[in-house]
Amino acid sequence: MPEKGENNAEEDSIPFTKIYSMYQDTHVMIFIGFGFLMTFLRRYGFSALSLNLLLAVISIEWSLIVRGFFSDHFRDHGKFAIKLESLLSADFSAAVVLISMGVMLGKFTPMQYILMTVIEIPVAVVIEWIVISKLKINDAGGSIILHTFGAYFGLACSWAFRKPIQRTHKHEGSIYHSDQLAMIGSIFLWICWPSFNAATSDPQDGRERAVLNTVISLVGSTIATFLVSQAVDHQRKFDMVTIANSTLAGGVAIGTVANVVLTPVFSLLIGFIAGTVSVIGYKFLTPYLTNRFGLHDTCGVHNLHGMPGLIAGISSVLVVVNPEGKYGNSIAELYDGVRTTMNGESGFVYGVQAIHQLIALLIVVCASIVAGLLTGFFLRLRFIRQIRDDEHFSDADFFETPHDFEILTNGKSE
Amino acid sequence: MPEKGENNAEEDSIPFTKIYSMYQDTHVMIFIGFGFLMTFLRRYGFSALSLNLLLAVISIEWSLIVRGFFSDHFRDHGKFAIKLESLLSADFSAAVVLISMGVMLGKFTPMQYILMTVIEIPVAVVIEWIVISKLKINDAGGSIILHTFGAYFGLACSWAFRKPIQRTHKHEGSIYHSDQLAMIGSIFLWICWPSFNAATSDPQDGRERAVLNTVISLVGSTIATFLVSQAVDHQRKFDMVTIANSTLAGGVAIGTVANVVLTPVFSLLIGFIAGTVSVIGYKFLTPYLTNRFGLHDTCGVHNLHGMPGLIAGISSVLVVVNPEGKYGNSIAELYDGVRTTMNGESGFVYGVQAIHQLIALLIVVCASIVAGLLTGFFLRLRFIRQIRDDEHFSDADFFETPHDFEILTNGKSE
Amino acid sequence: MPEKGENNAEEDSIPFTKIYSMYQDTHVMIFIGFGFLMTFLRRYGFSALSLNLLLAVISIEWSLIVRGFFSDHFRDHGKFAIKLESLLSADFSAAVVLISMGVMLGKFTPMQYILMTVIEIPVAVVIEWIVISKLKINDAGGSIILHTFGAYFGLACSWAFRKPIQRTHKHEGSIYHSDQLAMIGSIFLWICWPSFNAATSDPQDGRERAVLNTVISLVGSTIATFLVSQAVDHQRKFDMVTIANSTLAGGVAIGTVANVVLTPVFSLLIGFIAGTVSVIGYKFLTPYLTNRFGLHDTCGVHNLHGMPGLIAGISSVLVVVNPEGKYGNSIAELYDGVRTTMNGESGFVYGVQAIHQLIALLIVVCASIVAGLLTGFFLRLRFIRQIRDDEHFSDADFFETPHDFEILTNGKSE
Repeated sequence: MPEKGENNAEEDSIPFTKIYSMYQDTHVMIFIGFGFLMTFLRRYGFSALSLNLLLAVISIEWSLIVRGFFSDHFRDHGKFAIKLESLLSADFSAAVVLISMGVMLGKFTPMQYILMTVIEIPVAVVIEWIVISKLKINDAGGSIILHTFGAYFGLACSWAFRKPIQRTHKHEGSIYHSDQLAMIGSIFLWICWPSFNAATSDPQDGRERAVLNTVISLVGSTIATFLVSQAVDHQRKFDMVTIANSTLAGGVAIGTVANVVLTPVFSLLIGFIAGTVSVIGYKFLTPYLTNRFGLHDTCGVHNLHGMPGLIAGISSVLVVVNPEGKYGNSIAELYDGVRTTMNGESGFVYGVQAIHQLIALLIVVCASIVAGLLTGFFLRLRFIRQIRDDEHFSDADFFETPHDFEILTNGKSE
Repeated sequence: MPEKGENNAEEDSIPFTKIYSMYQDTHVMIFIGFGFLMTFLRRYGFSALSLNLLLAVISIEWSLIVRGFFSDHFRDHGKFAIKLESLLSADFSAAVVLISMGVMLGKFTPMQYILMTVIEIPVAVVIEWIVISKLKINDAGGSIILHTFGAYFGLACSWAFRKPIQRTHKHEGSIYHSDQLAMIGSIFLWICWPSFNAATSDPQDGRERAVLNTVISLVGSTIATFLVSQAVDHQRKFDMVTIANSTLAGGVAIGTVANVVLTPVFSLLIGFIAGTVSVIGYKFLTPYLTNRFGLHDTCGVHNLHGMPGLIAGISSVLVVVNPEGKYGNSIAELYDGVRTTMNGESGFVYGVQAIHQLIALLIVVCASIVAGLLTGFFLRLRFIRQIRDDEHFSDADFFETPHDFEILTNGKSE
Repeated sequence: MPEKGENNAEEDSIPFTKIYSMYQDTHVMIFIGFGFLMTFLRRYGFSALSLNLLLAVISIEWSLIVRGFFSDHFRDHGKFAIKLESLLSADFSAAVVLISMGVMLGKFTPMQYILMTVIEIPVAVVIEWIVISKLKINDAGGSIILHTFGAYFGLACSWAFRKPIQRTHKHEGSIYHSDQLAMIGSIFLWICWPSFNAATSDPQDGRERAVLNTVISLVGSTIATFLVSQAVDHQRKFDMVTIANSTLAGGVAIGTVANVVLTPVFSLLIGFIAGTVSVIGYKFLTPYLTNRFGLHDTCGVHNLHGMPGLIAGISSVLVVVNPEGKYGNSIAELYDGVRTTMNGESGFVYGVQAIHQLIALLIVVCASIVAGLLTGFFLRLRFIRQIRDDEHFSDADFFETPHDFEILTNGKSE
């Protein structure tokens, strides 16, 4: 907790105010955004909202503790301090868990979700520490360390946990209202994503670039989503699940280099590519993975966080190879391992930075897959309570439901 | 994109942070506010949310380009820069389009909406440039250049596009949940409107006045809405459509002079008048225009943006005639064409400013009507695909709908 | 209204920007948070959203006037000024009224709610003035003066207004969608609560502590809610009403000392206790009070605002007894009646501050109960229109309802 207040309040309040509104936007994404986006399942709305809240809260608390143990302050003083930045990092850790939750949605009991959270957070924090502190990569919006990690952890977990009943379950599907409720989540994610990508960027010019590039990339992915989703539909109709998700792919894809890119056309293009890849993923890849490998992905996390995360990582390699030298002193904040006037002679050259970005991406993918596989195998062990076959994608076994629940949600499957 | 970061980050971050939270509130209005407000139609929820998102995104991109071509920077350097202020202006352009969309809701195909957007944005930007840069009017919240323009463009378009089937269509109407979903939009518009009206006001005292006057005017219109809507109902009941819309009329009506007014009672009164006019519009004028002239207005945009926009324009004439001289140096920001100690001798007197405000209002009304008429005539041309008669106000032809869609939304009309 | 703009705009904008984003979060709580949280009743959604809006607006206007008459500026000049801080105080007054409204939800006509508002605001403002200005207590998030007052005023009013029909009414209950709509309110309250508790804290270190402690306390109450609500359920299932409400108890319970506490474990513990007490209240105490004393509490306000408010008051006595002396100059802002280097010799010692906090809590509880009782007795007088027995907890008598209203909401009671 911050102690003493000897400084002039007005001077001091700038950094707090600066971060606070972006922190609050991040909070909206974690609790409203992820929570409502997952209500699209017609029988799983209570679970989606409640368990999203519960896992976010456990992630925040657990991340504060894990990150505290890793802090210099703990090493030196045997205890750790909590600041607004700690809460922001804790929200980022919650994002990792909620992304993985999206893959497993409807297939875990509350206790299984909690166990997954307890395992995933420390692994994600360690990997983050390796690639940020040791490899000194730039990952402004965390597309590598958060989105890619969360997605491939969840996918690996889902594959290890695969069961035939998941493939074509009568309860998996939406109703008219649940698709609209999901849009509350989707649109708030769209609105607040610039804050997510910019919150940790310093100084001001990097933060402003992060906001601008994210908005423009989201514009690109949204336009791509409408164009492509109509084009690949056999009736030329739009599909709400795709619209609720693929429109956001640009936010992920620009995340890593959002504070670097100087040309808006580049952000627009990245967003457009990510949106296109995401729609095609929903239409063709996800069904293929489910049918061919039993890899079930309830929310299509691979299309919103997985592949766009890879695009983000690869773009961060390409961008850094060609630094444009227009950043002035702020280059020291963007690439703090690189040899510049600011950083001194001890740093490495830009080419090495590019290699580090690539290595980081590989580490994250590999580590998340291994950790996810182990978690999935562990959680299917017989002594852990499993969801009943009939009650996959359903609130009925874990929540008190009102009298209209069965009538409303148990209609014939689509 | 902002380059270089030579300044001290902390000093620099004030203007960014100042605008950013108001920009985010504006974003909430555009995407959540307009989007959900339009979900009140029981069969058009997917379209309302998705097409609102699509049009907003196209508007943002198209406005960035059009405004870029008009910028001094483009004239001098052959390219244009994008800053946070550019995104804010782009959101304002999106508001113009979404207001017009409200008039046409349920009567256009997605492609027709897009064509309307492509036509409307450049016209609105040119008119805005004429009245702001040439006539040097004050229009803090854009009630003249955004709300009045968008409303009369849409109304003229709707009249030119009129078809008998629009008048009493079985699908036009709400269900219990759709009216509640619409309130998500309405309430977020209510909350964020002060930011919309204040975002471009400088210096700080003008910005604070804009916030205060907007809140107080919204209080006035909300109280008027409940009083009057009950009084004019034959059963003395409240009507949700009126409540979701007329409560917001105060935000429009105070918009132009929000940064000028010094007496809270004046804002309260403006809001109260706007709320009253708006409710009466919903109850009597809109049905009359539909039945007498075939002028169909799905969302009642004339009552929320049209007439309150006129009130805003007229109030800006009256207020400027009687400047109270308590503004200090900030007068130069409010009326930058007027002769003051700050502006120098070259400016004009307050009376001329008042005339300019009036001329600006007339230009906006006339230009929007002409452009709207031409757009409406164009979009009904035979070679452009039209909505099927049966599927007005319905998602069915353009969206994949869940199995409960027909049962839920096709019940007997009210 | 703020006049003149002689200061440099950029310097000036810091305090405005600092407060403004917290003010907007408070606005979200008042209008979205309380409004949607009360939509859980299946037949009362229109009323919950509309009357929440109406009462909030009347409270804001009425509070501006009442507080204006109490201001020094009015005493000296015969008129009062309105600033952003005035609007923030007005929102706080609205919170008091909306908390009381939660107890009476579904049992008052619109006019009865309005009369309650008109009576409650001045009493609350006077009591606030006594305990803040005279007793000089610290109550950062207003848990004593707002939550405790609003809760016990409402409960006393409900008891005085008790009618047998309230106990087991066929219309009291939720449907699947209404429980999910309520979560919109609940989650936004959760997200914005840190701003509510921190908005008036100065200087910056106090504000940051208020944010951190509130988040951590909410984490505590959320974890407790899930643990305890499952443990006390006979089927070991979660209950949505408890989750939507008790998760928030930590925000109330930490409110009074949010700007003081230095040890996160303390906040976590306070939140955990409040969450536990709240769940037990929903499960056992509320039904008992209804059956034994006819004290009906529609939203369970006693469990969310009443008992957690008492916990907040008591914790503020305990914390102040043991001041840790790590606050530097900011102590003068936290406890401005206490004798410190900053405040000078005229103040009292910490022990006296603790006694003041206790006396303040007692005054608030007693005054709210007396005022609530009188209000309840008054509002049941025969010449005031009462709700029809059949139409308790229903929109039908006061709102135009769509054709699906009866079918959707009149199903067999749970």
